[in-house]
Parts: sequence; structure tokens; C-alpha cells
Amino acid sequence: MSLELFTVNNLWLLVATCLVFIMHLGFSMLEAGFVRKKNTVNILFKNAMIIAIGLLTYFFVGWGLMYPGDDFAGGFFGFAGFGASMPAEVAEAYAAGQYDAYADGGYTPWTDFIFQAMFAATCATIVSGAVAERIKLGAFLIFAAIFVAIAYPITGMWQWGGGWLAENGFHDFAGSTLVHAVGGAAALAAVMVLGARKGKYSEKGIKPIPGHSMPLAAMGVFLLWFGWYGFNGGSVLSADAVGVSFVFVTTSLAAAAGAVFAFIVSYAISKTHDLSMVLNGILGGLVGITAGADVVSPMAALAIGAIAGAIIPLSVVMFDKIKIDDPVGATSVHLVCGIWGTLAVGIFAADKSFMWQAIGCFSIIAFSFVFSYALMYALKVTIGIRVSEEEEIKGLDISEHEMEAYQEKESSPVFGYAVE
Amino acid sequence: MSLELFTVNNLWLLVATCLVFIMHLGFSMLEAGFVRKKNTVNILFKNAMIIAIGLLTYFFVGWGLMYPGDDFAGGFFGFAGFGASMPAEVAEAYAAGQYDAYADGGYTPWTDFIFQAMFAATCATIVSGAVAERIKLGAFLIFAAIFVAIAYPITGMWQWGGGWLAENGFHDFAGSTLVHAVGGAAALAAVMVLGARKGKYSEKGIKPIPGHSMPLAAMGVFLLWFGWYGFNGGSVLSADAVGVSFVFVTTSLAAAAGAVFAFIVSYAISKTHDLSMVLNGILGGLVGITAGADVVSPMAALAIGAIAGAIIPLSVVMFDKIKIDDPVGATSVHLVCGIWGTLAVGIFAADKSFMWQAIGCFSIIAFSFVFSYALMYALKVTIGIRVSEEEEIKGLDISEHEMEAYQEKESSPVFGYAVE
Amino acid sequence: MSLELFTVNNLWLLVATCLVFIMHLGFSMLEAGFVRKKNTVNILFKNAMIIAIGLLTYFFVGWGLMYPGDDFAGGFFGFAGFGASMPAEVAEAYAAGQYDAYADGGYTPWTDFIFQAMFAATCATIVSGAVAERIKLGAFLIFAAIFVAIAYPITGMWQWGGGWLAENGFHDFAGSTLVHAVGGAAALAAVMVLGARKGKYSEKGIKPIPGHSMPLAAMGVFLLWFGWYGFNGGSVLSADAVGVSFVFVTTSLAAAAGAVFAFIVSYAISKTHDLSMVLNGILGGLVGITAGADVVSPMAALAIGAIAGAIIPLSVVMFDKIKIDDPVGATSVHLVCGIWGTLAVGIFAADKSFMWQAIGCFSIIAFSFVFSYALMYALKVTIGIRVSEEEEIKGLDISEHEMEAYQEKESSPVFGYAVE
Repeated sequence: MSLELFTVNNLWLLVATCLVFIMHLGFSMLEAGFVRKKNTVNILFKNAMIIAIGLLTYFFVGWGLMYPGDDFAGGFFGFAGFGASMPAEVAEAYAAGQYDAYADGGYTPWTDFIFQAMFAATCATIVSGAVAERIKLGAFLIFAAIFVAIAYPITGMWQWGGGWLAENGFHDFAGSTLVHAVGGAAALAAVMVLGARKGKYSEKGIKPIPGHSMPLAAMGVFLLWFGWYGFNGGSVLSADAVGVSFVFVTTSLAAAAGAVFAFIVSYAISKTHDLSMVLNGILGGLVGITAGADVVSPMAALAIGAIAGAIIPLSVVMFDKIKIDDPVGATSVHLVCGIWGTLAVGIFAADKSFMWQAIGCFSIIAFSFVFSYALMYALKVTIGIRVSEEEEIKGLDISEHEMEAYQEKESSPVFGYAVE
Repeated sequence: MSLELFTVNNLWLLVATCLVFIMHLGFSMLEAGFVRKKNTVNILFKNAMIIAIGLLTYFFVGWGLMYPGDDFAGGFFGFAGFGASMPAEVAEAYAAGQYDAYADGGYTPWTDFIFQAMFAATCATIVSGAVAERIKLGAFLIFAAIFVAIAYPITGMWQWGGGWLAENGFHDFAGSTLVHAVGGAAALAAVMVLGARKGKYSEKGIKPIPGHSMPLAAMGVFLLWFGWYGFNGGSVLSADAVGVSFVFVTTSLAAAAGAVFAFIVSYAISKTHDLSMVLNGILGGLVGITAGADVVSPMAALAIGAIAGAIIPLSVVMFDKIKIDDPVGATSVHLVCGIWGTLAVGIFAADKSFMWQAIGCFSIIAFSFVFSYALMYALKVTIGIRVSEEEEIKGLDISEHEMEAYQEKESSPVFGYAVE
Repeated sequence: MSLELFTVNNLWLLVATCLVFIMHLGFSMLEAGFVRKKNTVNILFKNAMIIAIGLLTYFFVGWGLMYPGDDFAGGFFGFAGFGASMPAEVAEAYAAGQYDAYADGGYTPWTDFIFQAMFAATCATIVSGAVAERIKLGAFLIFAAIFVAIAYPITGMWQWGGGWLAENGFHDFAGSTLVHAVGGAAALAAVMVLGARKGKYSEKGIKPIPGHSMPLAAMGVFLLWFGWYGFNGGSVLSADAVGVSFVFVTTSLAAAAGAVFAFIVSYAISKTHDLSMVLNGILGGLVGITAGADVVSPMAALAIGAIAGAIIPLSVVMFDKIKIDDPVGATSVHLVCGIWGTLAVGIFAADKSFMWQAIGCFSIIAFSFVFSYALMYALKVTIGIRVSEEEEIKGLDISEHEMEAYQEKESSPVFGYAVE
């Protein structure tokens, strides 16, 4: 491969890394917008720490678990060692002008690591919204660290690290299952162990608990869509012109169709124009197309996005009915639409096996769910995972952080500056 | 063309697509910040739906109307068919290593479609701010869908699709007229049919109705500026080093000069430091330079931006005087500065004809205005376009969406969690 | 150099320019979040104007001061003339296919200018947060214009323009000192001349004055991190695959370590989970790694970031003890961590001289501090730099802008639209 092509391939992966990074701001704003004002600092704190924890654990452990290489791996588990580095033989090959010495010239080992590390951190973030407003900060951070260090890379290795699913033709282009459903399954498990927010479900019925800021939620979704061009586009693993541009088209069409069909179905259900459904419909369309963005046609992308969008309001209602209290709809968006998107590859892509799509998807979800349930349960019976009822009423911002997200005081020109 | 150059050219167009996409977040935040709190969900809803509608209608109809190709087009109208695809002959040429088979090697057909689709969606968004706070949601969505599906691509075809203006030397690099003035003219027509917000103009004079969040408005403008590097930079249609970097310089200087001169002129008028004027001055500078960013000198870019910035406060006052009620200043920014920028090419670029700049600009504006006026009028006399007085007073968030943008309740640690 | 490599190198610098641009939105949101509600419009206004002023002064003066070229420079000062242009000999060389005629093929003169201009504007922005909530708008804008036009480019020339520090082996990759400590030293000087906010320090002790919006502050930090990939990654000055990807890794690890260690140390001090410390810890890590991102190992990057993060809470407490009132922590983040990062290159990079790192760092800081102190003092004794006590109490939004950042009125569906 020429130096020029190697350079442009690698550059696109790095730009995509930036785009995936900004998804963390998207998640932060989306989750902050969908929780109550009194829990806003808490959700921001968790999101800021998760990126840090995600990058660090992936550097130390996750990377070695997810890409063990042939020498260290079975089909289900392997470990290449701690840390990330530039192997001497790659550096020598580059010096000799052999730019396809690593990853067929798509990128350097450093690029490989940082692009994958951003994905890993994304997966952990999915959980934080679902368990918002009642989980103990410390318990959550421990859960997130262990989950992203161990669970995410193990199932990731099954496919992207060359494990048993990769060998059987499972196709999950950018991670409808490997990232989104894995995160969504962990979210579901965590919510089941943790329980619903106080007052959400009672004999009087299901209490709506609206989020405190729709502008933040909308901003989050736009930023996630923006970042998804890196998430899916970067998963081409080169700057291949036809490959990346095709993925941009399928990704865009699915997101757009998701918005429209979430709108239509939610309007049919509730006869109102529900912004949160449209926002989650966009995300559902994006999660749905992630598995097959490279292999399905634009018309199939429209269908996948439309069905994902239609699923969103139905799934949100369904989870509420079975008393799974997920303040931001993460299970509907990431788990349900992740499953749909993975199975859809078996439907719309001629050469993919529906059976193996199902086997892969449900195996991975099962692992993530069981791991997360066991880990959360272990935390519950040891350090405890839920704040006290009093703390939940006061809000986590005060009880965990001694801060408020917004300061109204001293703001009025009438009341002026409170010296005391 | 070499594979390498083709790849990097195409990559830049895709990155630019991402940047143009984020302009939709910019518009959303700007418009949300400039409307009253009670209409915030509504404006976010419209902006989220417009991208979806814009992408989908452009896929199905707009693309074929805007780029009809020689076989299907006259100078004024043509249609190449529904949908977007990779023509078989292009795919074959690529397979044979002929990377200049499409668009002289600048990009693939998929890139072409998605980059243009983002532009189309941008144009529709311009209208939403001007008609905010009193238009019926359904009527607006129908208007936006028809406008972006039909009106935008027809005038777009006159120039970018190889129509009669392109043949006569009209120059509109990235769309001062073809995107901004088209959207601004539609906004003006829509406002004229719709009327002013209740209470805005009365015998007591003009009532200021300040927007509810300056941080959102400022964020919107910064994001629009950010996205404009893709809007103008991408319009080079390749990664040509001198071409793109030159456009970055002219674009930046015009935006900066717009800020400074909007500040100076608005200070001269009102003796205060008006943030909204500076923000719209930046946008005015950006709209102004869009037509000639590739052909005017840096000093001319400064002059174009400075005059555009100076125009903003004057234009805002003027539109208020003639009772055109535009809550976000979209007509001043996009229509007036769009006209200025297009004419400025005839002044500052030696080889461009001022006459044809004027003919092109006003022909396109006339088409957009008449189309939009007729369409909005047709909607008015059929389904109705204006919410009731009671709904306007309550705000569209409650009346159209049964939601509030912000939830203050349950937020205080003093009052705690309202179980009821 | 081939056209292809030149094009991709240049493209990366332009994308990096976009990323550095968005840091201005990051600073705006961070500073807006950390000030009181009553001073929000003011801080947004300053940030919007600073980019404009920064770009314009750099175009007219700064660029010629910072890169004087051999003909016009001594080791300490030189001036190549006003404005930025494409030299005729470069254009001719490009036309002849000699793409390494300028900057060894990394970028065009236009790219060079706009990338550097964004850096310059960044530096001025650092000051605005530290002096927030009590400085006169006019005085600040004059200070910022002179500082960015003269002081920043002179010290920048000492290293990046080929001056005396460059000749002695000083290493400051992307500007821990040349941008961040320069800005931080100016901020410190400005605060010393200006004095603390009313009521901050009294005989009763130090009054905490919390910022008014943590979501804005968090958003700002995420955007700054995002932009830092362009700030550091772009400073490779080409798209070199190994070079840029390595910088992405060190930058990411330092930011993550900064978050974790700011968390640990602030928790040890205050026994609470302080979001603002974590946010500033991220920024501290980023500032710290900026000097050596290209030459220190990933493990050293972790150490640099961790120490920077640990410094943040200690430094914030220290500055409060000596009554330096900095509402956003800019001196701790940019000055203290900038010094640390610059010295750390002498510790962790084998071939760099600790002594010259110290000489370079403190020489530059001394210049910036003295220049800024003198300039601010001159403004104080002439036009005055501080708003009146009454204006400070009312807030700068009302007293300087006759606006409020947020409009609560007319927002309630209960109270409805106030016709009067």
C-alpha cells in the first residue's frame, strides 16, 4: 500500500475517533435532559468519569482481551497482555515503507487502540441513563469499570477479535449487538437488580416523570447522530470512498426514517406530538442500521430505520408495563433496536444467515445480561447499590455531590447580590 | 485520477457532510434560544423533523429534480427519476481504476447525494425560525416537505444542476442565494401569510419579545460557524489544498468582520452591547461570503462580512417597522445578507457580471417567494396555518405537544419529591 | 512530495482548524456555566467578540509578528508585515508540482494562517473567564485585542517562529506554555490588577460563589476535549499516521488520568464528589500533555495527566487562600498545569533539557505576566477596568447589555402571555 493511501485511511479513523468521542457529550446531554433537575450533576459526573474509566481500563485490560491475537486466544477468550503499544515489527515495516503491515494499511496500532477505546467507553455510558436517579455513585463507577474492562471486550472478541462468531459468518458491522445491545442488556440487568424509582409504579398506575430539559435532550440526540457518522463510517476501517459514503447514506436514511415512524406510531398511540419519542426514534434508527450499514440497500436501510422507529414507542410502553423503570429509554433504544438491527441483516442482506445473526445476537446479550446481573447483585449484597429513600427524595446532586446543577440565587436584578 | 487523490477528495466531502449536519443542531439551538420558553419543545420538534423530512424527500424526489442530467433537463426544469443510486457504469469505472468517472474524481455518487441532501435540509430549517411561536405544527411540516422536495431543487437546478443561470455565468459558490436567500424568501412569504405574533405590533408600538435563553442562541451560532467550514469548504467539491484553505480564510474573516460591524452599528443605534446583534452579525457575515468565498480576496471578504454585519441591525429594525415579525431574524440574516453576498461577487470578483448576479439572485428569490406564498396561502385556506389565540397564549409546547421544555418541579431539595 | 500526500496533510490541518474553532464554543459554555446567571450574557458576548478580534488582529498584525521569517527577525522580535497572503513563489512552485515548497508540504500558507489564528484567539479566551463578573466590557475588549495582537505572537515567535528558544532546544509541542501558560499568566496579572469579586473574600472567610449551570460547564469541557484532538493532533503539522495517532493516544490518556486524579484528590480534601474539580481535572490533564504529547510515552502521559489532575484541587484552594479570585479556575488549569506540562517534558522525554524547559517556560510566562499587568494597569488608570459596585450587584447582563440571559416571563401556561 502506498504511503498516501495509508495516511488517508488512518486519518479518517482518527477523525472518526473524534466523532465517537463527541457521542459522549451526546449521551451526557441526552441523559441530563431526561432526568430530573435534582439529579443532573450526578448524571454529568457519571458521564465524565465513564469516559475516563473507559479509556483507562481499555488501555490496561480491555484492548488485550478484545484483540488477543492468534497466539493467545481460543474462540471464546484470550488475552494479549496489558497496555497498548506499537509492536517493533510494525514500526520496522513502516520504516521500510510497508504500510500494510498492520490492519492491511487501514491504520496504525495507536489508531486502532484509540478508536476501539472510544467504542468501549460508549458502551458503558449506555447503562448510566437507565439506572439514573437512584443508583449510588460509587457502586455505579465500580460496575462501569468492571463491565467495560471485562464484559464488553470478551463478547467483542467473539466477533471483532476473531472469535467463534466471526468464524461462523455472524455480521455486526459497527455494533448493533456488540456495543448497543451489550450496553442495553447490561442496562436491563442493572435496572432489574436496582428497582424502579420511588413513586414510579404504584397502585394508582404509572407516574410520568418528565425530564427537566428538552433542549439538552434534543442537543444530545443531534450530537449522537453527528457522532454516529464516525461510529459507522469509521467502522469501514479505511477511507474507502465507496464504502464510507455508502455507510453515510444508509445511516442517514435509517435515522430519518426512525424519526418519522416514531412520530407516526407515537401519535397513533397518544394523539400528541411527543418530542422524546421522535428523539428516541432517531436513536433507534441509528442503532438499528449499525449492524448492517455496509451490506443493506438504501431501501432496506429505510425499512430498518422505519421499523426501529416504530418499535420505540411500543417498547417504551411495554417496559413500563412490566415495571422496568428506565428514565431515558436506553433499553428500548439500545437493546431492542440493537436486536432488531442485528436480525435485520439476516433479512435484508442476501448472503447473511438469519440463524447465525440470531445465535450471535442472543449469545452476546445473554453473556452481557448474566454478567451484569451477577455483578450488580454482588455489589448490592456487599457495598449496596441504592441510595436511601431520603437521598432519592432530596436528589443525588445534593446527597452525593453537595451541589445543585443550576443556581437561581443572585440572578435577579431586583433582589441583587446576596452578600450573606 | 489516482486512487489516493480520489479517496482524500471524497473523504473531505464526507467530513464536510458531518459539519453541515451539525448546522442543524446550530439552527435548533439558535431558534430555541430566540423563542419564548413556552414554544421551545415545538421548535425543537420542528427542527428534528425537518432533517428527517429533508433527507427523505431529497432522496425520493429532490435529488432527481436538482441534478436531472442532460437527458432529462431543460434550462428550467428536469427530472432524473426517484431515489439515489450508484450507476452501474460508475461502479464499473471505479472497478477499472478510473476514479474520475464521476464528478471528476471529487466524490462518489453516494457522497454527492448525502452532501447535497444535507444542504437541502438546511434550507428548510431557515423557515422554521421565522414562523415560530404561532404556526400550526402540521401545516408547517407539510409546507417544509413540499418546499424542500420541489421548490429548493428546482432553483438549485438552475445553477448547480447545469440550468440557465449556470450557462450565463451566474456565480453562487456555496449558496448565498441558492440556499440562504431561497430559505429567507420562503421565510418572508410565510411570515406575510401567517401574520405577526399576538401583541407584537399594536398602537402602543413594537413590543420586544426577547428569546428565553441566550446560552442556547450563542451555542447555535458557534455551531453554525463550525458547520460553515463544511458548507463552504465542502463546496470546493474536492480536498484541493489551496482551494479549501483559501475558502477557510475568506469564510473566517467575513464572520469575524460581521461580528465587529454588527456590534458597532447596533451600538450606534441603541447605545448598548446587544448580544443577539453580534450573533446575527456573525451569521450575516457567513451568509454574505458564501456566494464568493472562492473568488474574492481576503480584503474583499473582510469588506463583504463587515457590510453584512452592518446590515443586520438596520435590516432587523426595518423589518420590524414594516411589521414583518421574524422572531429569530432569519429574513435579515438569510435573505438580505444572501442578496448582498450574491451581488458582492459582481462587485469584488473581476470576472463576474454584476448584472447576471442580480438577475440570478432576484429570479431565484422571486420563484421561492411566489412558490412559498402560494403554498402557504393554499394551506391557510384549507387546513389552516395558525394556532388559535388561546393556544398561542398558552404556548405551543402545551397546546401542540402537551409537554413543557423545562421541569422545575421536584427539583428543590427543600420541597422534595412530589409523590402526588 | 506527491500531490496526494500534500493534499491529505493539508486537509488534516484544516479539519484540526475546525476542531480548534469549536474550542471557543467550549470555553464559552464552560465560562458561562461557571459564572452567575446575572453575568451570562456578558461572558457570551466577550467570547463571541474575542474570536472575531483574535482572527482580525492575527490577520493584520499577529501573523507577521509570530512568523517574521529570517529576513525580518532577531531571536526576540521581528515583523514580516501586515496581513496574510499566498506568496507568488509558493503559488508558482505549486503550479510546477513542487508541493513541499511551503512548510515541507504540510499545508498551504492559507492553512498555516488560519490554523495559527485559531490558536491565537484561543489564548485570549483564557483570560475572559478569570476576570469574569466584574470587568468592564470595553476595557476587556481593548485588553484582549492588544494582548492577542502583540504579546501572544511575540512569545510565540521565540519558539514557533524560530526565535531564541527554538535555537536552544526548548520543546513545547502544541503550547502548554506558548498558549496555555501565556494565557494563564495574563489571566493572573489581570486578576491581580482587577481585584476579587465583591464579597468573595471577607473577614468571615472565603465565600463560595457557585456557577449557575453545570450542564453548560460540562458541555464546555467535553467540547474542549473534542477540540484538543485538533489542537494537539494538528500540531503534528501533517497527517503523518504514526505521529498523529500517537498524539491522540497520549492526549486521551492524560485527560482520562486528569479526571480520575482530580476526583481522588478533591475527594480526599472535601469528602464530596465535586463535578467542577473533575471537569477542571480533565482540562488540567489536557493542558499538561500539550507540551509533550509527541515525545512522551503513554505511561508518561498517564503520569503527566494524573499529576495535573491532582494539582487542580490543590491549586484552586491555594489561589483562593492568596485571594486570587478566578471564577472558572483558569489560572490553575492553564498557568499551573501549563508549567507542569512544560517541565514534565524535561522529566519524561530523555533527550530534552529540564533546564531549558524551565528557562523557556518562565521566560515566556514572565513576559506575558509583565505585559498583561502593565497593560491592565494602564487601562485601570485611564479608562477604568472595573464596573461600579452597583453594576456588579445588578449583574453585567443588565448593566452592560440591558438583557437577561434567560426569560422566565410569559413562559407559564398558567400565567399566559403578558400583553402588557
